[in-house]
Amino acid sequence: MKNYKPKGRLTSSAYIDGVLKGDRVLLSRAITIIESSLESDKLLAKNIIQTILPHSGNSIRIGITGVPGVGKSTFIESFGKHLIKEGHRVAILSIDPSSQRSKGSILGDKTRMEELANLEEAYIRPSASGDTLGGVANKTGETMLLCEAAGYNVVLIETVGVGQSETAVHGMTDFFLLLMLSGAGDELQGIKKGIMEMADMVVINKADGNNISMSEMARIQYQNALHIFPLSESGWSPVVSTASAIKNIGISNVWDEIKNFKRMVDENGYFNKNRNYQQIQWMYNNINEELKQLFYGSKNIKNQLNDLEKKIISNKISPVKAAEIMIQEFKNSLN
Amino acid sequence: MKNYKPKGRLTSSAYIDGVLKGDRVLLSRAITIIESSLESDKLLAKNIIQTILPHSGNSIRIGITGVPGVGKSTFIESFGKHLIKEGHRVAILSIDPSSQRSKGSILGDKTRMEELANLEEAYIRPSASGDTLGGVANKTGETMLLCEAAGYNVVLIETVGVGQSETAVHGMTDFFLLLMLSGAGDELQGIKKGIMEMADMVVINKADGNNISMSEMARIQYQNALHIFPLSESGWSPVVSTASAIKNIGISNVWDEIKNFKRMVDENGYFNKNRNYQQIQWMYNNINEELKQLFYGSKNIKNQLNDLEKKIISNKISPVKAAEIMIQEFKNSLN
Repeated sequence: MKNYKPKGRLTSSAYIDGVLKGDRVLLSRAITIIESSLESDKLLAKNIIQTILPHSGNSIRIGITGVPGVGKSTFIESFGKHLIKEGHRVAILSIDPSSQRSKGSILGDKTRMEELANLEEAYIRPSASGDTLGGVANKTGETMLLCEAAGYNVVLIETVGVGQSETAVHGMTDFFLLLMLSGAGDELQGIKKGIMEMADMVVINKADGNNISMSEMARIQYQNALHIFPLSESGWSPVVSTASAIKNIGISNVWDEIKNFKRMVDENGYFNKNRNYQQIQWMYNNINEELKQLFYGSKNIKNQLNDLEKKIISNKISPVKAAEIMIQEFKNSLN
Repeated sequence: MKNYKPKGRLTSSAYIDGVLKGDRVLLSRAITIIESSLESDKLLAKNIIQTILPHSGNSIRIGITGVPGVGKSTFIESFGKHLIKEGHRVAILSIDPSSQRSKGSILGDKTRMEELANLEEAYIRPSASGDTLGGVANKTGETMLLCEAAGYNVVLIETVGVGQSETAVHGMTDFFLLLMLSGAGDELQGIKKGIMEMADMVVINKADGNNISMSEMARIQYQNALHIFPLSESGWSPVVSTASAIKNIGISNVWDEIKNFKRMVDENGYFNKNRNYQQIQWMYNNINEELKQLFYGSKNIKNQLNDLEKKIISNKISPVKAAEIMIQEFKNSLN
């Protein structure tokens, strides 16, 4: 199966030309190759990426997160339409290793942003599937590069806000947007620790009707809270605002703040510095993941680790000694 | 030099008996062996740790951090004396891989807690030195086990609050205490992102004289801010209080809160669950560090990584491909 070569594959230059011309069909087919696990596709994917690489990077990359129910799709639809009205071309990707999406839900993904999906200037691609977060992040990252090469100058990468994937998205974007709801902080229970500190902007969504005064109170509360955080390396002070995606209120303000941010980090040099850092970190993340795979991928090692865990808990062996034993075992297995 | 066997070493059972009897001199000498990098001492250290292991764990482990100038030493002196008055035996360790302490500063370390150092029920041991945070953390962790076996039932582990070592300390303690000062949030600039979210308690120190009302304002501000954080897995809501270590005000309250915490996590099972998790994580941290060492320790690999970093930044190679090349290189070097 791994050596099966699907019919209908084009040459790498056909995909490359198509992507660089902004051809949506060829872009989609190129992304399918990036996401494929077939050996023949992997080689094709490498050629495509390698050639489009110098044409990538010309976008602002925005991470968007928030728990289910916060109105992410509605927000992205409203925000995306605003960006397009301002003359931008918008790619919307998502990262979610927990959901193995079927073709049915790809459709579902597009229907939830129906109007946006019908616009020529928007390109919506749901989450790649995969077993590991690292694998999914690689695919989303490479898909982002293809979209940029195809002329999309704003990339939105969405996550669900409840797992590990926010760190991955934060590590591949320029600006990190956290969507929240008003209401006594209860909704925060779903947001993992550490996500608040990543946010460049917090938007209290659904600030309409009876919710307006509650949302304004939440805004002040969050603004005060973020104020006491240490400043990010970018020098940017996180902003909190309210919005109603469904009524299209406060959406243009979000984009204005992102433009302010971009202007600042262009001037102080952080934008390029951070991009370079992220690219290099991307390599190191892959190396470290692969190193762990070499070690933990062995069934023999896994069984022994289980035994050692039990011995550690019952104080029969020290953690330091247990680690030494396993590393020795691993070194022996290499020879 | 590595095979040099120093004169005057005792048998492992002499150290073990001494530690278990709470003999301070033998405890100190046993810790010196733990910290030693001599091969003969390493074997001795393993024997000691392995035997005292079942006698360790009977303490509450408290991490204390805060930037220089916050009054950590004065706080620990005041807090330690309070604990001893309540009948406890207190060990004070520190973790600080950045400072290669000389014998001179060991003395300095004790002088800054002069009264505490003179009490029979207190044991103060400055930071082990070492090249890597992982190495220093191992030594501090094992020193902690020895202190517990010697009958110290409260262990305070201190860090400087500006580096990576807080995560290490958080990973080996039950309760994490952050010392702060009042004053417009400026002092937070020195605290790294993420540390606030680890805190089980924030103490605004130096709340005396003209500082009292400012400190109270800071307390309310931090309390409100911490309120909007996601709840920790322990179920504990972080507490903020004011204190003046130098005037001995608010110190007993800190201990009361820690007792409240302990009662809660004993009842809900988190205390044991977290201890087990930490012990196992200790093994995995060592394994992962060692795996990285195997890879990044090679000079050949280091040189190539430097080249690849440059190529990545200039878009000549994709990060994913660069990682693949390096992993292949590593695999080849193993055969």
